Amino acid sequence: MENNLCVVLHSQGDLRLEERPIPEPGPNDVLLRMHSVGICGSDVHYWQHGRIGDFVVKQPMVLGHEAAGRVVKVGSAVQHLNVGDRVAVEPGVPREMDEFFKSGRYNLSPTIFFCATPPDDGNLCRYYKHSANFCYKLPDNVTFEEGALIEPLSVGIHACRRAGVTLGTTVLICGSGPIGLVCLLVAKAMGASVVAITDLSSERLKMAKQLGADFPLVVTREDSAQEVAQRVAGILGNQPHVTIECSGAESNVQTAIYATRSGGVVVLVGLGGEMASVPLVNATVREVDIRGVFRYCNTWPMAIAMLASGKVNVKPLVTHRFPLEEAAQAFETTRQGHGVKVMLKCDKSDQKP
Amino acid sequence: MENNLCVVLHSQGDLRLEERPIPEPGPNDVLLRMHSVGICGSDVHYWQHGRIGDFVVKQPMVLGHEAAGRVVKVGSAVQHLNVGDRVAVEPGVPREMDEFFKSGRYNLSPTIFFCATPPDDGNLCRYYKHSANFCYKLPDNVTFEEGALIEPLSVGIHACRRAGVTLGTTVLICGSGPIGLVCLLVAKAMGASVVAITDLSSERLKMAKQLGADFPLVVTREDSAQEVAQRVAGILGNQPHVTIECSGAESNVQTAIYATRSGGVVVLVGLGGEMASVPLVNATVREVDIRGVFRYCNTWPMAIAMLASGKVNVKPLVTHRFPLEEAAQAFETTRQGHGVKVMLKCDKSDQKP
Amino acid sequence: MENNLCVVLHSQGDLRLEERPIPEPGPNDVLLRMHSVGICGSDVHYWQHGRIGDFVVKQPMVLGHEAAGRVVKVGSAVQHLNVGDRVAVEPGVPREMDEFFKSGRYNLSPTIFFCATPPDDGNLCRYYKHSANFCYKLPDNVTFEEGALIEPLSVGIHACRRAGVTLGTTVLICGSGPIGLVCLLVAKAMGASVVAITDLSSERLKMAKQLGADFPLVVTREDSAQEVAQRVAGILGNQPHVTIECSGAESNVQTAIYATRSGGVVVLVGLGGEMASVPLVNATVREVDIRGVFRYCNTWPMAIAMLASGKVNVKPLVTHRFPLEEAAQAFETTRQGHGVKVMLKCDKSDQKP
Amino acid sequence: MENNLCVVLHSQGDLRLEERPIPEPGPNDVLLRMHSVGICGSDVHYWQHGRIGDFVVKQPMVLGHEAAGRVVKVGSAVQHLNVGDRVAVEPGVPREMDEFFKSGRYNLSPTIFFCATPPDDGNLCRYYKHSANFCYKLPDNVTFEEGALIEPLSVGIHACRRAGVTLGTTVLICGSGPIGLVCLLVAKAMGASVVAITDLSSERLKMAKQLGADFPLVVTREDSAQEVAQRVAGILGNQPHVTIECSGAESNVQTAIYATRSGGVVVLVGLGGEMASVPLVNATVREVDIRGVFRYCNTWPMAIAMLASGKVNVKPLVTHRFPLEEAAQAFETTRQGHGVKVMLKCDKSDQKP
Repeated sequence: MENNLCVVLHSQGDLRLEERPIPEPGPNDVLLRMHSVGICGSDVHYWQHGRIGDFVVKQPMVLGHEAAGRVVKVGSAVQHLNVGDRVAVEPGVPREMDEFFKSGRYNLSPTIFFCATPPDDGNLCRYYKHSANFCYKLPDNVTFEEGALIEPLSVGIHACRRAGVTLGTTVLICGSGPIGLVCLLVAKAMGASVVAITDLSSERLKMAKQLGADFPLVVTREDSAQEVAQRVAGILGNQPHVTIECSGAESNVQTAIYATRSGGVVVLVGLGGEMASVPLVNATVREVDIRGVFRYCNTWPMAIAMLASGKVNVKPLVTHRFPLEEAAQAFETTRQGHGVKVMLKCDKSDQKP
Repeated sequence: MENNLCVVLHSQGDLRLEERPIPEPGPNDVLLRMHSVGICGSDVHYWQHGRIGDFVVKQPMVLGHEAAGRVVKVGSAVQHLNVGDRVAVEPGVPREMDEFFKSGRYNLSPTIFFCATPPDDGNLCRYYKHSANFCYKLPDNVTFEEGALIEPLSVGIHACRRAGVTLGTTVLICGSGPIGLVCLLVAKAMGASVVAITDLSSERLKMAKQLGADFPLVVTREDSAQEVAQRVAGILGNQPHVTIECSGAESNVQTAIYATRSGGVVVLVGLGGEMASVPLVNATVREVDIRGVFRYCNTWPMAIAMLASGKVNVKPLVTHRFPLEEAAQAFETTRQGHGVKVMLKCDKSDQKP
Repeated sequence: MENNLCVVLHSQGDLRLEERPIPEPGPNDVLLRMHSVGICGSDVHYWQHGRIGDFVVKQPMVLGHEAAGRVVKVGSAVQHLNVGDRVAVEPGVPREMDEFFKSGRYNLSPTIFFCATPPDDGNLCRYYKHSANFCYKLPDNVTFEEGALIEPLSVGIHACRRAGVTLGTTVLICGSGPIGLVCLLVAKAMGASVVAITDLSSERLKMAKQLGADFPLVVTREDSAQEVAQRVAGILGNQPHVTIECSGAESNVQTAIYATRSGGVVVLVGLGGEMASVPLVNATVREVDIRGVFRYCNTWPMAIAMLASGKVNVKPLVTHRFPLEEAAQAFETTRQGHGVKVMLKCDKSDQKP
Repeated sequence: MENNLCVVLHSQGDLRLEERPIPEPGPNDVLLRMHSVGICGSDVHYWQHGRIGDFVVKQPMVLGHEAAGRVVKVGSAVQHLNVGDRVAVEPGVPREMDEFFKSGRYNLSPTIFFCATPPDDGNLCRYYKHSANFCYKLPDNVTFEEGALIEPLSVGIHACRRAGVTLGTTVLICGSGPIGLVCLLVAKAMGASVVAITDLSSERLKMAKQLGADFPLVVTREDSAQEVAQRVAGILGNQPHVTIECSGAESNVQTAIYATRSGGVVVLVGLGGEMASVPLVNATVREVDIRGVFRYCNTWPMAIAMLASGKVNVKPLVTHRFPLEEAAQAFETTRQGHGVKVMLKCDKSDQKP
């Protein structure tokens, strides 16, 4: 086997390409030759700040958690995967069979392993081993890049599911970055009748428009939350049933509450400052529920089903590609906010989507 | 005003076109000039048999309950509708504020008024008055015929909602008549990844294919329920999460239970004989829920939203049109099972869709 | 008939006992001779401040909305009630058949009539007419006072229902006033295994202890939200599944979020200032849902069932009684925070519970 | 260590007491010295018939799955248990991390290990090893026998949870055997206002009455399903919201459907013949859901919470006790239908409850 080139963050600002040993899969693992790994905003944030909240990079950590690759070695106890299988990687693997795991909400398990969340290594490398139970075989008509995009897509699925989006739901999305866009795609696929989406940047809203947003809406920092809420109600003809907040901005959380119809749901995906000042009385007397989203659970199978059936098209999200060797440029491109999704191609022999 | 021609069923087999007075709307009613009214299988069943279950035609009854028309008079207490508004008619209007109505399941209210269910008159006529609260304004881009089709579409919405169809759900539909087809349309719009649909007639399955069914499947009366269940699992690669039974045939109910994945849902829409022999142990030990569907509730607003946004296309369902004066031919066409939906055009001055 | 003495709030601070005509019931109403009416904190708040949020007393308004009485006259269209029936009064009556009413959440209907919310008159008087559909017959073994207490009890039912309290749920309640106490009673009756309850006043916690609280917990204004949350987890052995915030204090909302188990629910019943500063990131990454409670819907029948079966005992909540003529003293007693619930006895001929 | 006496079923009718080696716990297991093990109807059924449905005893199998014991050895990877801990045993342990396990319904996993379901050995023996993740520590105030009774109690919890029993629910239970009785206990603890329970035997109904049933109702084989349904409605004053069928008798399934209120739920716990003839049209047009119950999942923690708090009292269910050496008599007693629950005492040094 060839060497194992990895993208390793040593500490804040210190990102390196370096060789690591090819890992040996345990009995329940598979070894993967990585094919495509997307760069997430959190990867860049760790690089720039060395931490996200209480998660601090204290020792060198491989980045990357939006990934797909090919099985090259299979642990002795693995039954459902074979060498050669193309798989998408779910980056969170519960370590304990606690109450959260047993009841189907394993994303809340406090001891979960999660790729590229310190101190757990990610999969932005040539070879990576992972729990076989959290690798999902891709059908022939789903590309590796689509497989890698299941990770951000899963955030959209989990958000729309927690929001209860269904046939005829009207949706407001705050923030038109990659997560806002996947929420848009998923909401539409779940039957939302109209989706309005806001952003400070009219540039980013163009992509939203292309991906099917009915009402892209430029907002400014000067707009009050109540004003934006009223504009949304005016445009939609009524308040939206559901608002999905993807920016983390306090003002958008306020907008989300004011904007949502009585009895509706605000889903918080974006993370802002620890404390936020929000109109809780308004939410209370109108029974607008506020539900947070932390990663996802039980999304890969349905995501694969949607990609295989062509009901969701994530391909336009990939705007840049770099070979693994050019990870530095790839990260810089992401940092500067160009495009939507930057994909790193980890397999020298196959750099296709 | 002109005369009020009505399609009246006097008793089993005795269908007449006759004049009735134009009704006067009460304070909470509107008077409608009917535009398009679809013929439902139940209309034909009352005509042929004089009864459905405990509902017996004992006095002359106007038929029709899939309807749209234009407001020509407005009751004194009505605020949300005006003369000239184009509306779709929800045929069920609860008479009592009982526990079912108060809790949002008014379709279960035992004293509900329902068009063309004896002894309540339907709306297959020139003029018809209805509770304004159950008339829904149509946007300009939704035709009268689409408005009339909201009634059968609502059965599909209610069925898919009770089934919990959502993103990535795999669905089996038993029976490819009008109700099977609307279930298909709605399941797809709610995010179902694949839909298989069965019928005895390959002819009817053609329309299902055109409307988006992934796997049309001809079955015969000789196939055992377990065989059909296995074929479905084979075709889909796994058992479907949800089965929607639209035929009323006992064998299909059996198929539905055997076919559905553990933890999944069978929804019963079709009505067969009062007693049915079904594999309850199989359903029990695999926790396959069995849920009936009786009409619908709270579906018109979301149906209008879906039609207005173009997410559901019901137009291909209309295969025949007759002017109201030719109701006899229209009923005969429906009785013979030609096409999918026969539409009666009640407005002499506007026979467009 | 005798005169109709009413407790009328003319404007902030101006509470009067005055005669009004005995109202005539409409076809769907009943006329009641009031028996027992509890004083709610909101009655006192209107008296002291002339407003609650956007609801301002602009014209004289009868107070009172926790009420039970006897039917003395029946509207022509009323079928389920007769003269002589003892009934509890649900004070909210929807005026419009809007989307909220049709879907079973009529408490959210923006045009709802509600006793003693300006400008709608309440029922603290000798005679009062009300929609018969929102009067519920009391069984012989449920007293008038229990009937009147169904109103505050309903807040507890709605809160615990929105919280999803069920067998084995562990519950924290913030605030030991009348609403905290009814939440305690209901949580226990729904199967909560342990209930902790906090208050600034050890006096109020004594009543909580008597009513079944497992862990009454005195808190001070100096305690940080995180400290209180940790104490609660220490006492219960784990974080509670559910926290019901009944005080409206910002610090308690913060405590509620920090204290609740991942995947759990915070229910907000108390109302504080319009904006509140809360740890939203903590709630988001642990998927702690925040759900407001606005009054209630569909609670009277189950409340009557619980009182009739003896499963909930609200009698100890009544600590003071005054004849209607002494309303001034009754309000002053409530204002001073004595006891739990002050009951006004409106029927001169029967002042029993 | 002493010998390991086990109750082994060799084949239909051939039940033996024999020595087996004391098992060695794997890294994720604990070894238990069993204390109390209840005899379940299924144990007796395997003994008498050698099979239940597709599960056939083909090789000698240890019986027993209602168990509690003390930890005497701890696997190397186990962290939450220590030698000396008193634990209750959840007999089902999923072997695969399949879709059912990941989504919190591991009872539906087709490859699950389950004590005393062929070919998996049960725990009616002196020493038994089990997955530590499915052993739950008992608080000091919960006895071993209560711990063993969590298994049947769990069936009641799962049934009432699937039925949606909550505050004010009215419940009909068909069948007053051990499972009917635990459903009764749980329904009451979840807030059911009234519970009616039927049985052919007035003797068995006496215990139901003692345990809190409001309406014990003797039925005969001659009563038609509709007659029983009407009697129940008459006694309760209205149809019950929920019916829990615990007998497996076809006539009771029919009764359950006819008896349940529109929009309510029938839960099937008892297993009868593979096919059953049931009034599906009645269930469909009244939207009475039919939900099966297969064992349980996620019940032990809440059961322990309820026992520790004294909210559920299962102690009266134990009517007979035998030392392990007298297993033959214990099984014969159960077979003859004496009492409710027969407990085998497996620890020679401690035969207390």
